[in-house]
Amino acid sequence: MRILEDRIVKEGRILPGDVLKVDSFLNHQLDTVLISEIGREFHRLFKDCDVTKILTIEASGIAVSFATSQFFNYCPVVFAKKGGARNIGDDVYHSTCHSYTRGGEYNILVSRNYLSKDDRILILDDFLASGEAMKALIDIARQAGCTIAGCGAVIEKAYQGGAEIIEGLGVRLESLARIRKMSVEEGIDFCR
Amino acid sequence: MRILEDRIVKEGRILPGDVLKVDSFLNHQLDTVLISEIGREFHRLFKDCDVTKILTIEASGIAVSFATSQFFNYCPVVFAKKGGARNIGDDVYHSTCHSYTRGGEYNILVSRNYLSKDDRILILDDFLASGEAMKALIDIARQAGCTIAGCGAVIEKAYQGGAEIIEGLGVRLESLARIRKMSVEEGIDFCR
Repeated sequence: MRILEDRIVKEGRILPGDVLKVDSFLNHQLDTVLISEIGREFHRLFKDCDVTKILTIEASGIAVSFATSQFFNYCPVVFAKKGGARNIGDDVYHSTCHSYTRGGEYNILVSRNYLSKDDRILILDDFLASGEAMKALIDIARQAGCTIAGCGAVIEKAYQGGAEIIEGLGVRLESLARIRKMSVEEGIDFCR
Repeated sequence: MRILEDRIVKEGRILPGDVLKVDSFLNHQLDTVLISEIGREFHRLFKDCDVTKILTIEASGIAVSFATSQFFNYCPVVFAKKGGARNIGDDVYHSTCHSYTRGGEYNILVSRNYLSKDDRILILDDFLASGEAMKALIDIARQAGCTIAGCGAVIEKAYQGGAEIIEGLGVRLESLARIRKMSVEEGIDFCR
C-alpha cells in the first residue's frame, strides 16, 4: 500500500533494538484519514470472505479494526486484553505470548461471550514481527471454534519470520507494508 | 442519549465494588454502529468549538475518539499511554492519577510532539467516575498550552463527583449517559 509505505519512510524512526516507531500516525497519534484508507484496503483484500467479526488486541489494533469494520457493514470488533485479567471475569479464552520488545511473557484474554463457532473472524494488528501476538489471537479464535478468514497486519517486518509462522498455521496473511530490512544507516527497504 | 441508556440497561452488568461492565458494546466487544452514533452525538455537542484534535487514553477511549474524529473532518486523535512509558521516549508530558478500580497510582504519558499551543482539544473517555483520568488529561493538555474545547464522557457515574472536579477546573463537560445511582437490587437510574 503505497501511501502507507511513503508515510513510514517519511515519519518512521528506527531506534536501537530493531524498533520502528510510527507514533505520529499509528501508535500514539492516529491519522484517521490514513487509518480509514487502511480499513478500505483490508476490506478490498478480504471482502469475499464473509467476515462476521474482527478480532484484534489492545491498544494500537483498535483504531485500525474500527476503521475496517465500517467497510464490513459495521461488523463487531473484539479486542483482546493484555496481562492481568482485571475485571474481565473468569470465563475467558487465553493464550500466552512472548514479547521481544518488552521482554517476558504475557497473557492475552478474550471473554468467551464474544467469540463463537458461527463467527468468521478477521484478525488484525498494527505490527507483525515474530508473529507471537497474532499466533496467540489465532489460538484463541480456534479455541472458540471460529472460522478464521485471515490475518491482516498494517506493517510486517518480513525478516523476522512472523509470516512463516502464521502461514504455517494454515492461515492466510495480508500485510499492507512489508519491510525487507531496515537500519539507521540505510533506511527502510520494502518487499514489493 | 437514549439509545445508549437503553443499551446500558439491557446489557450492563453491575458487579461488586460499584463496577458497571459494558463489555458487550464498549469495553471489550465494540458495537461499531452504536459507537459511530456516539461520535455523531459528541460532534453535535461540540461542533461550534473549532476542535483540531481529540485527546483520549488507551484502550477503551480509542474507538470512541476515532468515531468522533470522523465527524470533525477526520481530525487527528492522540491517545495517552498508561504506565511504564515503554518505547515512548523521554520527551513526554505526564500526569499521575489514582485508580479506584485497580488500586494504586499510575502515570499517563503523551509525547510532546503531538500537542501544541495551537491545538483546540476535545478530551474524550469512555467512563467518568471520580474524574481522575480526565483530570490528568486536562493537566497534560494544559502543560502543552492547548486550548481545551471541552470534555466528553460516554458514561458518567454522576454520584462519584467527577463532574464537579472537571467543571471546577473551568472545563465544559458533556456526558452521554449520566447514572444517578445503581445497584444490583434496584438496577440503574439515570439523571434525565
